[in-house]
Amino acid sequence: MVALGGNALGKTPEEQLALVRQTARPIADLVEKGYQVVIGHGNGPQVGMINVAMEFSANRGGGTAAMPFPECGAMTQGYIGYHLQQALRQELRSRGICREVVTLVTQVVVDEADPAFSHPTKPVGSFYMKEEAESIAREKGFTFVEDAGRGYRRVVPSPAPKKIVELAVVERLVEAGVVVITVGGGGIPVAETPEGLKGVAAVIDKDRASALLARELKADRLIILTAIDKVCVNFGRPDQRALDSMTLAECERYIEEGQFAPGSMLPKVESCMDFVRGGGSALITSLEKAAQALEGRTGTAIVP
Amino acid sequence: MVALGGNALGKTPEEQLALVRQTARPIADLVEKGYQVVIGHGNGPQVGMINVAMEFSANRGGGTAAMPFPECGAMTQGYIGYHLQQALRQELRSRGICREVVTLVTQVVVDEADPAFSHPTKPVGSFYMKEEAESIAREKGFTFVEDAGRGYRRVVPSPAPKKIVELAVVERLVEAGVVVITVGGGGIPVAETPEGLKGVAAVIDKDRASALLARELKADRLIILTAIDKVCVNFGRPDQRALDSMTLAECERYIEEGQFAPGSMLPKVESCMDFVRGGGSALITSLEKAAQALEGRTGTAIVP
Repeated sequence: MVALGGNALGKTPEEQLALVRQTARPIADLVEKGYQVVIGHGNGPQVGMINVAMEFSANRGGGTAAMPFPECGAMTQGYIGYHLQQALRQELRSRGICREVVTLVTQVVVDEADPAFSHPTKPVGSFYMKEEAESIAREKGFTFVEDAGRGYRRVVPSPAPKKIVELAVVERLVEAGVVVITVGGGGIPVAETPEGLKGVAAVIDKDRASALLARELKADRLIILTAIDKVCVNFGRPDQRALDSMTLAECERYIEEGQFAPGSMLPKVESCMDFVRGGGSALITSLEKAAQALEGRTGTAIVP
Repeated sequence: MVALGGNALGKTPEEQLALVRQTARPIADLVEKGYQVVIGHGNGPQVGMINVAMEFSANRGGGTAAMPFPECGAMTQGYIGYHLQQALRQELRSRGICREVVTLVTQVVVDEADPAFSHPTKPVGSFYMKEEAESIAREKGFTFVEDAGRGYRRVVPSPAPKKIVELAVVERLVEAGVVVITVGGGGIPVAETPEGLKGVAAVIDKDRASALLARELKADRLIILTAIDKVCVNFGRPDQRALDSMTLAECERYIEEGQFAPGSMLPKVESCMDFVRGGGSALITSLEKAAQALEGRTGTAIVP
């Protein structure tokens, strides 16, 4: 199970199309080495872009409908999945590997009683003036926060993923040797209600969703790909140290010391810990070094 | 193989969410009767909305990137597929049927030598003033036409579908009893190039794409769902007649007589003819009457 950062996918369709071709190579390396690969990916910049564009058009005279946040996430699964599956299929075929690559639109259940819902933290969409934000907040019940002097921005909660709705299909495809792109953007967040599943305005951390899926699939490995080859402690200080591995106990100690930034390295380390506690082995490394890291030559392994 | 109209999905996310619940019932009827259902769907209003919003935001100061047309189509597959799979899953579960329902992001190959590319006909996106349209046409190479006095609108070609890229995965899921939503909006149009598949600005007719998929899957039946229970000849005239069935020869005669509107009933009838020539049986009827039509009680059957 490979979790790919949304930032690695670029800010425009042209950037994304160029970047997925680079992304496809190390992933194809894993397939070529015989791994059965499942890909989760982030969608921060992409869902931001779509949300801003849909809001702008709806509010400023574009004449199109306002688009709820879960639907914007569903759009990113189509948009990113299309580019990724096209690029990876091509990279595999150029190596003579005729594996199928497919994107599944994937819903992930969250618990509406999750404490995250009373403390929304993830900024999404456009910046607004104070008055405008207050008016939208009254009208739609959104929560806004002031964002570093740049204006007011809507925040949504980041609840824990509880269940992958389309898990059985992912399993079936993995068994059949298909490379599956799933839980895009952490999955479309849905809550279980008496009337069935219902989209909720939230962002599920894509590393947590990938870790959950890896556990459910009984994957051997969870690989979280990020901008750096190895996890560091004392980051940015003279005694900065890159780690070859961390035990669960070491992870806990580093977390207590505040070594890992919330919303950045912390959820990655915690997602790995979750997966390792369930019996798997986890790695944090850069996209470029993924294949080397799997051979134990670089990256930070999270071990029991 | 069921082909569902994009117009039946509504113009806003709220409308769509309400309409997919109604759509789910007759489709669940088919599943309940033991049919293994594959769903194709249109995306006219939805890709229009997304394209207009992305253009409006990119051109009028929203600060987001311009979005190519195939990528807008990929977004609609996520957006529509999410709602459809959620509603259909719920409808099945409410009947005690635990079948999986999943949306596959699906590319469909078209031939860049298709004559449709020299005669783009499908209007997409916003209306522009003459000068604006000419300036965009120069800058981006788009084709614009004057649209019924309402202004200038971009047109894209509607080439024939040649190949379903993700066919093998659709087949596998169908065999496994999964209800598959695929070829959304006729599929994301791609061309085969020496560097692999490449998105092209085009709209593939969803009935033609569904007919191709039905042939490839060796489906028993192709059901094209539309606004009317039966196909009519002499439509809107005193001698209007609803047809229980049409042979291929009758279809040809009616087409010669100009009985079916291009861009509306004509591609539906032609798609059915294609499928029937390949040995299947085809039906055109309304969503509400789908199950009755399969029992031969209504609808228009297209027969050899």
